[in-house]
Amino acid sequence: MEGVDYLSDERKKAQFDVEAMKVAWAGSREAFQLSDRMAKLVANDPAFEKFTRPMMGRKELLKNTLRKAAHGWKLIVDLRLTEEEAKWLRLYIDEPAYTDLHWGMFFPAIEGQGTEEQKKKWLPLAQKMQIIGCYAQTELGHGSNVQGLETTATFDPRTDEFVIHSPTLTSSKWWPGGLGKVSTHAVVYARLIVGGEFHGVHGFIAQLRSLEDHSPLPGITVGDIGMKFGNGAYNTMDNGVLRFDHVRIPRDQMLMRVTQVTKEGKIVQSDVPRQLIYGTMVYVRQTIVADASKALSRAVCIATRYSAVRRQFGSRNGGPETQVIDYKTQQSRLFPLLASAYAFRFVGEWLKWLYMDVQQRLAANDFSTLPEAHACTAGLKSLTTSATADGIEECRKLCGGHGYLVSSGLPELFAVYIPACTYEGDNVVLLLQVARFLVKTVSELGYKKPVGTTAYMGRVATLMQNNCSVQTAEGWLNPCAIVEAFESRAARMAVRCGRQLAKFENPEEGFAELSADLVEAAVAHCQLIVVSKFVEKLQQDIPGKGVKQTLEVLCYVYALFLLHKHQGDFLATGYLTPKQASLANDQLRTLYSKVRPNAIALVDSFSYTDHYLGSILGCYDGNVYPKLYEAAWKDPLNDSDVVDGFHEYVQPILKQKVRTAKL
Amino acid sequence: MEGVDYLSDERKKAQFDVEAMKVAWAGSREAFQLSDRMAKLVANDPAFEKFTRPMMGRKELLKNTLRKAAHGWKLIVDLRLTEEEAKWLRLYIDEPAYTDLHWGMFFPAIEGQGTEEQKKKWLPLAQKMQIIGCYAQTELGHGSNVQGLETTATFDPRTDEFVIHSPTLTSSKWWPGGLGKVSTHAVVYARLIVGGEFHGVHGFIAQLRSLEDHSPLPGITVGDIGMKFGNGAYNTMDNGVLRFDHVRIPRDQMLMRVTQVTKEGKIVQSDVPRQLIYGTMVYVRQTIVADASKALSRAVCIATRYSAVRRQFGSRNGGPETQVIDYKTQQSRLFPLLASAYAFRFVGEWLKWLYMDVQQRLAANDFSTLPEAHACTAGLKSLTTSATADGIEECRKLCGGHGYLVSSGLPELFAVYIPACTYEGDNVVLLLQVARFLVKTVSELGYKKPVGTTAYMGRVATLMQNNCSVQTAEGWLNPCAIVEAFESRAARMAVRCGRQLAKFENPEEGFAELSADLVEAAVAHCQLIVVSKFVEKLQQDIPGKGVKQTLEVLCYVYALFLLHKHQGDFLATGYLTPKQASLANDQLRTLYSKVRPNAIALVDSFSYTDHYLGSILGCYDGNVYPKLYEAAWKDPLNDSDVVDGFHEYVQPILKQKVRTAKL
Repeated sequence: MEGVDYLSDERKKAQFDVEAMKVAWAGSREAFQLSDRMAKLVANDPAFEKFTRPMMGRKELLKNTLRKAAHGWKLIVDLRLTEEEAKWLRLYIDEPAYTDLHWGMFFPAIEGQGTEEQKKKWLPLAQKMQIIGCYAQTELGHGSNVQGLETTATFDPRTDEFVIHSPTLTSSKWWPGGLGKVSTHAVVYARLIVGGEFHGVHGFIAQLRSLEDHSPLPGITVGDIGMKFGNGAYNTMDNGVLRFDHVRIPRDQMLMRVTQVTKEGKIVQSDVPRQLIYGTMVYVRQTIVADASKALSRAVCIATRYSAVRRQFGSRNGGPETQVIDYKTQQSRLFPLLASAYAFRFVGEWLKWLYMDVQQRLAANDFSTLPEAHACTAGLKSLTTSATADGIEECRKLCGGHGYLVSSGLPELFAVYIPACTYEGDNVVLLLQVARFLVKTVSELGYKKPVGTTAYMGRVATLMQNNCSVQTAEGWLNPCAIVEAFESRAARMAVRCGRQLAKFENPEEGFAELSADLVEAAVAHCQLIVVSKFVEKLQQDIPGKGVKQTLEVLCYVYALFLLHKHQGDFLATGYLTPKQASLANDQLRTLYSKVRPNAIALVDSFSYTDHYLGSILGCYDGNVYPKLYEAAWKDPLNDSDVVDGFHEYVQPILKQKVRTAKL
Repeated sequence: MEGVDYLSDERKKAQFDVEAMKVAWAGSREAFQLSDRMAKLVANDPAFEKFTRPMMGRKELLKNTLRKAAHGWKLIVDLRLTEEEAKWLRLYIDEPAYTDLHWGMFFPAIEGQGTEEQKKKWLPLAQKMQIIGCYAQTELGHGSNVQGLETTATFDPRTDEFVIHSPTLTSSKWWPGGLGKVSTHAVVYARLIVGGEFHGVHGFIAQLRSLEDHSPLPGITVGDIGMKFGNGAYNTMDNGVLRFDHVRIPRDQMLMRVTQVTKEGKIVQSDVPRQLIYGTMVYVRQTIVADASKALSRAVCIATRYSAVRRQFGSRNGGPETQVIDYKTQQSRLFPLLASAYAFRFVGEWLKWLYMDVQQRLAANDFSTLPEAHACTAGLKSLTTSATADGIEECRKLCGGHGYLVSSGLPELFAVYIPACTYEGDNVVLLLQVARFLVKTVSELGYKKPVGTTAYMGRVATLMQNNCSVQTAEGWLNPCAIVEAFESRAARMAVRCGRQLAKFENPEEGFAELSADLVEAAVAHCQLIVVSKFVEKLQQDIPGKGVKQTLEVLCYVYALFLLHKHQGDFLATGYLTPKQASLANDQLRTLYSKVRPNAIALVDSFSYTDHYLGSILGCYDGNVYPKLYEAAWKDPLNDSDVVDGFHEYVQPILKQKVRTAKL
């Protein structure tokens, strides 16, 4: 029935103030209100309907996205939304579109790498969307390795132009979002050739399509790269392929903030520090971590609500079956993901602070914390996106068979999320970077004080020596014991890697040979960061009845779940005894019982609208089955009782005439 | 270039006879030849083209599947294919269709549960496809728990009929494949009500659609349940919803082999043992394990070939970059999956034997091994399908960004595979059944000799006492040491669970509370089975130069990879020291180097056609990039230079007219 809240009993069980938790989740009351206003603006506007998306063919799908993007832009203009409001509006429209790249990559690339003159010329055009741009870096044969790009930009001093060219098939630009069918311009990364010599890879602004009729300019071959994972998902995006056949652009369209090419063909380095690039990296990765908590929390919200609705087995005397959320197997899979969503939210918040800190230091020419900030953000990007991708699929499985229906929202969420594990640095490649930094930190301990998230390495002697002193299951409910356990594990694994590497004559060979172990050490370090930041968050004041206490339970769940999952590390390094590991596991079971009454309220605290969730299984009122049943009849196959193709392809079989049928 | 083998250098590295390995993989020369003939029949027939599938809308997609199914049936009839040949033909058509359910569930249900009379009446109709049937068990509100089904079949002695009825919305049949738009008949599971009393859940043959015009019969509401995960994937199947409004069927359409209802309304149990159902279960699960090795090997074949084609980083002096298959991180993720594909293949082969053994014993009224066979197959179904689902996604990630393209074949393989984790018993529910059996086996050790895959429990005292004696990395290259390690771990975890359970007054409460730990013990037991059966396989004669030696390497990779991944179990139970675990890990790295030269030949040995693989990244000749480039242009979005929707939705933005545009 409409208007009935089928989860109201669950909501009454909450032991904390949900409104206060919403504020804690959002970061501040202002942040909550802004986000909430934009969410409702989108949810209440029928132009942003999502349900029919998976049934559309590719052309119809992209056209629909173009319509939504235009409608969104109209709202931004009409309502004079701030930049921050516009960002949330686009997020809640919840559909990958060319605008993501225009605002998220094209604009910042010019802002960060352009000279004052260039910014003055191009940013107003982009700001008003008089041009639409994308970010053309990766090539058909070249992903992670920017230095391997093949596209060339050869300076021609006679005409004061660069000639952009794709010398091979594998040099075709491939993947850039918004490139295929929409962008008029691109920031193109290419090998700078001046006077026959290679001078590194740089960005160039190239126009791709006519501003009159949108047709590709001479020398430009551009198109869409085809279908991607999922029904709707990233198929709403025109990821593109692009080839240049000796396309000429004026010299002032090379982004010259750091490196300049003069009219005479001289290479001049500006006094702008090259480390600036790290600032951008920290920024982008911080947004990726924030997105991870968003995606994981959506999946967890769906799975938690449906686990309270769904009943299986355990009926007594013909009564109702047991809610699946009451099964310990369900709890042991679901609640750690719920805790992870909160953990990632708080570490993401901390990364915002880190970005500001890095920016301030850069402004003061202090580059001392950059390598650590770089390693830390690389690791957190990797850790949170991998855990989120796996977590979404786990949530789907936790919904049983119905999770496989597109109307559960989970297949699309998974399909649209997983590229995060690959873009902006493949997750394994990033962990190797973290490992490299860790090993370096360990080797320099004698004379260099480790900073930031590696500061604990300064206490390495103690961490190697002192073993865990927990003696009871309750003993694990101690933030110090938890953090120390993760510090000791991470330190011991890093030191161990360092010792093993020292056995190799050629350090690079050793690094290659031991890379799988190095990745494990990097994971241990990254998990420590997330655990520490959760613990630090709880040392702050968090208002609202029961809010802090509930978050404490989640923090312990997150940490002890990881401890159990990776108990091999803790045991192998000798920090824990099997008995202590077992006590942690006992405590974990107790903690699940503490999460249980708060589970629905904890996912309500994300404050997601039914529109944004896009899931029948996760709908707020829990009225799942009538909605599933109704939705089924909207499938195009149900337009008629007898399906298209029956007469040609089924009837001849039934009538034993298949041998003579025209198939 | 066409005709060039870009992987020929890789193929030359092989240290074994690929043709002999193909036979080992297929099981026998005859099996290989049959499979190979059917694979080529499908691959060479343009009617079975798969490339355009993901771009189709739902109606077009289903129509296309109906066409392929009819064409396949025509081939079966025309070429007078045997049942075995037809099965392989359908497999290589590689598209879920109503025929899967007709042949795989409807037919066997009548064969297994029907009386001789019923079989005589219905099987010939089904055999010739004069009727098309499905298997209608699960309901909107009821999945795993058959006893919770709500559909009723009430006997009406006045008319000698059953009245089939859906009393609630949640009793709607939901999910059955082939039900939505194609099947004329269904085996419907319903609560038998005779004389007002409930007599268990039974199967009934119900006609759903007219054999004349295919319209639903009076009282029948039937349709498709809507889109599922992926582009094509299971959207080629008409999974259905079905409601009965007091539909009457003759009494003789209840499947009465075990339980009969007489004309007078008496319930009569036949002398057919109820345990027969276990035989069917073992059969179905054996096919699921066989499918797992098939799906995983496809994914591994794609990822391995593309890892040899793809190069990233590591260029020296401007030379080519390093093949990604040469990175240890890649090897440490890919090669265990390659080994798993072989391990699952061989345990699947063994399950075929187990099924025959069970059948023979049933025929001789020997039910003694049934509970063990049931637990064993439940566990292996769970283990292999979970590992395969995760493995396919891991293979996709191992292909970098391009794995996300539908043309890589991996998104569809994943989407079409993952239901295997849920159907025929949710994987976690099955592991709990295994755990229950293990704990029972342990508790009965004093007076009951454990059999089959639990026989090792008979040596529990020794297994609890003796710890590992391996002292060098080479010491791990010993099948006895490996099997003993897995036996000890499994035995110790089961015993530990038993002891913890004993602390609970109410055993069921204890089982619920400890269920997450019980699942871990069950996994340990199942992994032991797979390892043991791989070791046993290698004790047989396997002809062909280098074949056995190469398989031995894979067997060690499989076992030591698991040992490292779960080292927490081995350390916590005290069986291994940290040093021994570390030696195993050292050995694992060495083994990867032994797999490396054989990697391409090992995936060639699956003998998959490019058609069946359905992947540009995995194509036999390794000529990936030109094929990716060409395929892109076939996307409908590339039909025109300027995309549909540009004039309505992008032009107004560029021209600053969005405020007045009609969107």
